[in-house]
Amino acid sequence: MSVLTTEPGATPTGEEPPDGGERHRLTAITGLSALSLDAMASVAYGPEAIVLVLAAAGAHGLGFTVPVTLAIAALLAVLVASYRQVIAAFPDGGGSYAVARVHLGARTSLVAAASLVLDYVLNVAVAVTAGVAALTSAFPGLYGQRLWWCLLVLVLITGVNLRGIVESARAFIVPTAVFVVSILVLIGVGLFRSAPVSTAAAQGHASVLADNATTVGALLLLRAFASGCAALTGVEAIANAVPSFRAPRARRAQRAEVALGAVLGVMLIGLSVLISRFHLQPVEGVTVLAQLADASLGHNWAFYVVQFATMILLALSANTSFGGLPVLLKLLARDNYLPHVFALKADRQVHRHGVLALAAVSAALLVFSGGDTNTLVPLFAIGVFVGFTIAQVGMVIHWYGERSRGWQGKAVLNGFGGLLTGVAAIVVTATKFAEGAWLIVIALPLLVVAFEAVHRAYGRIGERLGLGRIPEPPHRERSVVIVPVSSLSRLTSEALTAAASLGDEVRAVTVCYPDPEDRAHLHTLERDWARWSPGVPLVRLASERRTLGRPIAAYVREVTAAEPATRVTVLIAETEPERLWQRLLQNQRGAVVAHAVRRETGAVICRLRFRLL
Amino acid sequence: MSVLTTEPGATPTGEEPPDGGERHRLTAITGLSALSLDAMASVAYGPEAIVLVLAAAGAHGLGFTVPVTLAIAALLAVLVASYRQVIAAFPDGGGSYAVARVHLGARTSLVAAASLVLDYVLNVAVAVTAGVAALTSAFPGLYGQRLWWCLLVLVLITGVNLRGIVESARAFIVPTAVFVVSILVLIGVGLFRSAPVSTAAAQGHASVLADNATTVGALLLLRAFASGCAALTGVEAIANAVPSFRAPRARRAQRAEVALGAVLGVMLIGLSVLISRFHLQPVEGVTVLAQLADASLGHNWAFYVVQFATMILLALSANTSFGGLPVLLKLLARDNYLPHVFALKADRQVHRHGVLALAAVSAALLVFSGGDTNTLVPLFAIGVFVGFTIAQVGMVIHWYGERSRGWQGKAVLNGFGGLLTGVAAIVVTATKFAEGAWLIVIALPLLVVAFEAVHRAYGRIGERLGLGRIPEPPHRERSVVIVPVSSLSRLTSEALTAAASLGDEVRAVTVCYPDPEDRAHLHTLERDWARWSPGVPLVRLASERRTLGRPIAAYVREVTAAEPATRVTVLIAETEPERLWQRLLQNQRGAVVAHAVRRETGAVICRLRFRLL
Repeated sequence: MSVLTTEPGATPTGEEPPDGGERHRLTAITGLSALSLDAMASVAYGPEAIVLVLAAAGAHGLGFTVPVTLAIAALLAVLVASYRQVIAAFPDGGGSYAVARVHLGARTSLVAAASLVLDYVLNVAVAVTAGVAALTSAFPGLYGQRLWWCLLVLVLITGVNLRGIVESARAFIVPTAVFVVSILVLIGVGLFRSAPVSTAAAQGHASVLADNATTVGALLLLRAFASGCAALTGVEAIANAVPSFRAPRARRAQRAEVALGAVLGVMLIGLSVLISRFHLQPVEGVTVLAQLADASLGHNWAFYVVQFATMILLALSANTSFGGLPVLLKLLARDNYLPHVFALKADRQVHRHGVLALAAVSAALLVFSGGDTNTLVPLFAIGVFVGFTIAQVGMVIHWYGERSRGWQGKAVLNGFGGLLTGVAAIVVTATKFAEGAWLIVIALPLLVVAFEAVHRAYGRIGERLGLGRIPEPPHRERSVVIVPVSSLSRLTSEALTAAASLGDEVRAVTVCYPDPEDRAHLHTLERDWARWSPGVPLVRLASERRTLGRPIAAYVREVTAAEPATRVTVLIAETEPERLWQRLLQNQRGAVVAHAVRRETGAVICRLRFRLL
Repeated sequence: MSVLTTEPGATPTGEEPPDGGERHRLTAITGLSALSLDAMASVAYGPEAIVLVLAAAGAHGLGFTVPVTLAIAALLAVLVASYRQVIAAFPDGGGSYAVARVHLGARTSLVAAASLVLDYVLNVAVAVTAGVAALTSAFPGLYGQRLWWCLLVLVLITGVNLRGIVESARAFIVPTAVFVVSILVLIGVGLFRSAPVSTAAAQGHASVLADNATTVGALLLLRAFASGCAALTGVEAIANAVPSFRAPRARRAQRAEVALGAVLGVMLIGLSVLISRFHLQPVEGVTVLAQLADASLGHNWAFYVVQFATMILLALSANTSFGGLPVLLKLLARDNYLPHVFALKADRQVHRHGVLALAAVSAALLVFSGGDTNTLVPLFAIGVFVGFTIAQVGMVIHWYGERSRGWQGKAVLNGFGGLLTGVAAIVVTATKFAEGAWLIVIALPLLVVAFEAVHRAYGRIGERLGLGRIPEPPHRERSVVIVPVSSLSRLTSEALTAAASLGDEVRAVTVCYPDPEDRAHLHTLERDWARWSPGVPLVRLASERRTLGRPIAAYVREVTAAEPATRVTVLIAETEPERLWQRLLQNQRGAVVAHAVRRETGAVICRLRFRLL
C-alpha cells in the first residue's frame, strides 16, 4: 500500500551498512517480496470494498463482482505497463514526487508529496483496522472491542519503531510468501468446490445486503470500481525503489513489477470468482476473505492460518509507513518544504518525534473511523489515485518532450492510465464526500499551503543570514559575565570560577523580594558574601512584583545600554542530579531566568551543570 | 469545605497589596462570608448523604433523619468549641498541619498535610459534581450528560485560574449571603406548611428507597452519621486564617467561628426537620435540597433561585481549592517536603503547573465517580476527619503541656472532639472501603512517603553542595571555547565573535558524515572557511554512526583530558525567529548538541540566540 518505500537494506534509524555493495541489493525475487508487501496486503480489503458497494443492489448487484474486478484487473495491467515505463525513464527511483518535480513544476510536485504524506498516515490506519478485522473474524468475541484492539496494535508497532528495529528485505519474504501461497491455495481449492464447505464464520452475523435493492446503474458500478481500486495501492512501490535493485537495475525492477501485477491480478480475479460461485454475502463483523477461507477450506486450522497470515502481513504493511514516511519527510525538509528537523541525520530523539506524530495522527484516524476499515479505504484511495494521476500525466509530458521512437504509443498508455485513475479519484471523492472524503479535500491543499509557507520562510531566513556569502570576520569584544546568585554554596564558587575564566569582568546579582523572611535571607547572604570576599561584587536587584527573571533581564539591558561595545553573558549555574527523578527537585530558577533573559535581551546564556558527586 | 484558605486579600498569583494594612483585614462579618463559603456550601450535599444511607432501611429508616442530624449538630458544637480553643492557642493560624508540627512530630504533621492535599483535590471534585447536581435538578434534561457538564465547569474554573483572577473577600459576600438567606427562607416557609406545595421536581424520577427495608440498626445509624458529617467540612477554615483578621484577631476569629457554627447548625437542623415533615424520599437525579425547595417554595422562580444560588456557591467553593492548594504546597516546599519549584515566588508559569495538576487530578476523580457527588463525599470526609482528629489530639497534648487554669476541661473537650471525628473517620473508611475509600487508604501513606523521600533527597543535596558553609574562593582558569559549525553565514561570524570574547582560545568544529552529498557540503565549507580565514581553526569530526552530538561530546572529553586545567565551553549559536511559529523551522541541531554535551561532559554550554532583523 505504501507509496514510497524505504530502501530495503536500511534500518529506520538510518544506519546503512557501510559497504553499501551490490550483495545487499535486490534481485527480482527478493525485490518482489520486499516491495510488494503493501500491494499484496491490499487483497485483504480490496474485494470487500467492491462487494460492500454492490450489496446496496442486493443479490443481483453482487452478480457484478466479477465484471467489476475484471475492470480493475485491466486497470492494474495498464498501471503495471505504465510503471514499467516509469522505471525505464526514472532509473534513479521515480514516484509521483520525482516525476512531477521534473515535468509538472514545484506546486504539482507538492500536491504529489502531500498525497504521499496522507497515504502513509492512512496506510497505517487502514492496515491496522484490516488486520484487526482479520483477527475478529477468527475470534468474533473480540469484535465489540475492535477499536481498542486497533489502538493496542498501533501501540505495539509504535513501540517497536521507537526502539529502532533492524529490518531487512529477507524479514518480509516469509510472511509475504505464506500469505500469497495461502490465498492461492484458497482460490485453487475453492475452484473445485460447487458449494461452500462451511459458513460457520458468518453464522449469526447480520447481513448487510440491502432488502429493498436498488437497480444496478452505471453510477453504482463506477462506485464499486472506484472502491475496489483500493486493491491497487502499493503497485508503485517498486518504481520508487529502483536504485535498491542489483544491476541491471531497471530490468530487474521491471521484471519484479510485472510479476507483482500478475500475482495481484490472479489473486483479485480468483477471489472475485469465488465470491460469485459461493453467492457470498457481506456480513457485519466477518471479512469477505474470512468467509472465503471458510467456504473454500472449511472452518478448521487452514481457516485460522489464512486469518493469522493476513493479520501479520497487514501489521507489517502498517509498519512500512513508519520506515517510509521519515524518508519522505527528510526529502521534503532538504528541499526546504518542511522544518529542517526532519532532515537531521540519525538523531534518535528526533526520529522519535516523527514516529510519535505518525502514531498520534493514525490513532486519531482509528478513533474517527471507530476501527472500521471500510470508512478509511475511500480516503486512502483518493490520495493514491491523485499520486497515480500526477505520475501518469508527468509521463505523458516526458514522452512528448523526448519524442523517442514509438513515443506516441507510450504516451497514450500513460495518458489512458492517468485518465482512469483521475476519474477514479473524482468518483471516490464525490461519492464519499460526506462520509469522510472531505477530510482529504481539506487536508491535501492545507498541506501544500504549509509546504509553501515553510519554503518562503526559509528563503527569508537564508537571505537575512547571508547564506552563501562570505560573512564579516569575527572580532574580540570586552566581556562582562553576570551570575545570578541566591545562596552561598559550592555551586556559587564553581559558577564564579567559570565566570572569571570567561569574562573580563564578573558581577553577581541577587533578586530580593519585599517580604520580611526574604529580607532576612538577603541579609544573611550579604553578610556571608562579605566574609567570603570572592573578589566579585554582589548587586542587589529589587523585585516589587515578586518576579525572578525580569529584574535580571532589566539589569542586563541596563548594562548593555551603558556599555554598547561590551558583550554581556548571563551564566546560570545549576545542580545536575545523580538520578533522573531528582530532576523534579530542581527549583527551576535557572529555567525561569534563562527564559526571561532569552526573551527580553540579546545576551548569551551560559548554563553550567554542576554534578553532585 | 476547604481546609486551609488562601489569605482573602491575596490573588492566586501571589501579588499582595504592598501596604498589607489593617484596612484590608477581616472583621467578624466579612471574615464569616470570606471563610465560611466552603462550610455553607456543604449544606448542599450533607443532608442528602444522611438520607441516602437511611433510605436503605425504607421509610422507617428516614424517620431517623432528625435524630442523626441532631447528633451531627452536637458534633458541630463540639468542633466549634474546639476550634475556638485552637484559635486562642494558635493565633498565627492553626490548622492541623501547624498543630501537629508543634505537638505530634514531623511524621504526623505530614499525615495532616497529605490529608489536606487530598481534601483540596476532593473539594474540587465534590463541589463541581454537587453544583452540577443542583443544575440538573433544575433542568432534568441535562442529567444524562452530567459528567460532561462537570468537566465543562472544571475547564471554566481552571481557565479562570490560569488567567489569574483578582479575588477578594468582598466578592464572596453576595453569593454566600444569597445562598444562606434563600436556605433560611426555604426553611422558614417550610415550617409553616403541613404538606409539600409541589413535588414536580421529583416526579418521574426513580425512588432510591429500599423496598425490602432492613431494620434500623446501630451500624446503619453510625454510617448515616459518618456520611452526614460531610456537612461539617470547612468549619476549620477560620482557625487556619486567624492572621487575616483585624485586631484583636483571635477575638474576631472566635466570633466568626461561633457565628459559622450557629448558622450551619440552624440550616442543617432546619433542613432535616423539613425532610421529616414532608416525608421526603430520595430520588435519582434530583437533589434533596431541590426537592425541599420544591416542597417548601413551590415549583416557581423561587425554586430556580435556590438552585442557581447553590450552583454558584459550589462553583466558588471549588475555586477556593485553586487558591488554597498552591499556598499549602509552597509551605511544604519551603520545609523541603516538596520540590522547590512550588515555592518559586510569583512565577506565573509555575503557578500554572499547579493549577493544571489540580485540574488533571480533579478531572480523573470526576471520571472515576461518573460525576456523582455521593461517590466522592465519603472519600472527602475521610481526609477531613483525619485532619480534625490530628488537630484535636494535638490540642490535648497542648493543654497537657501548658496546664493553665481549667486545662482539664479544655483537654476533655478537644479529646472528645478528636474521639468523635476519629471514630467517624474509621467508620467511613470501613463502610466505604470497597466503594472508593481504598483510594484514600492508598494515596495518604503514599503522599507521606513521597514527602519524606523528597526531604531526604534535599538533605543529601544540601550536604553535597556545602550549604551553610563558606565555600572555596573562585579562581581564574584558561578557557577554550568550542563552536560547532555546519555552514557559513552571519550566524557563524556572530558565534565566533562571542567565542573570541569569552575564551582564551577558540576552535570551530564541524561534524561530517560518510555520505557523498555530505562530503561535498564539507568540501564547500572548508573551501569557504579558508577563503574567509577568521583566525580560528576548523576541526573536522568524523561521524560514522551519523550522530551529531556524540562526536562533539567526545571531542570535548578529549580536550578536557589533554588539558585538565583548562575550562572547556561549548558555544552553540542559533537563530531566534521573529515569529513564534517559525520556531518550528529551527533545525534543533543546537538542542541535540547541547543534550549530548550536557549528558556526557561537564562543559559549560553557552547558547547564543541571534535575532533575525
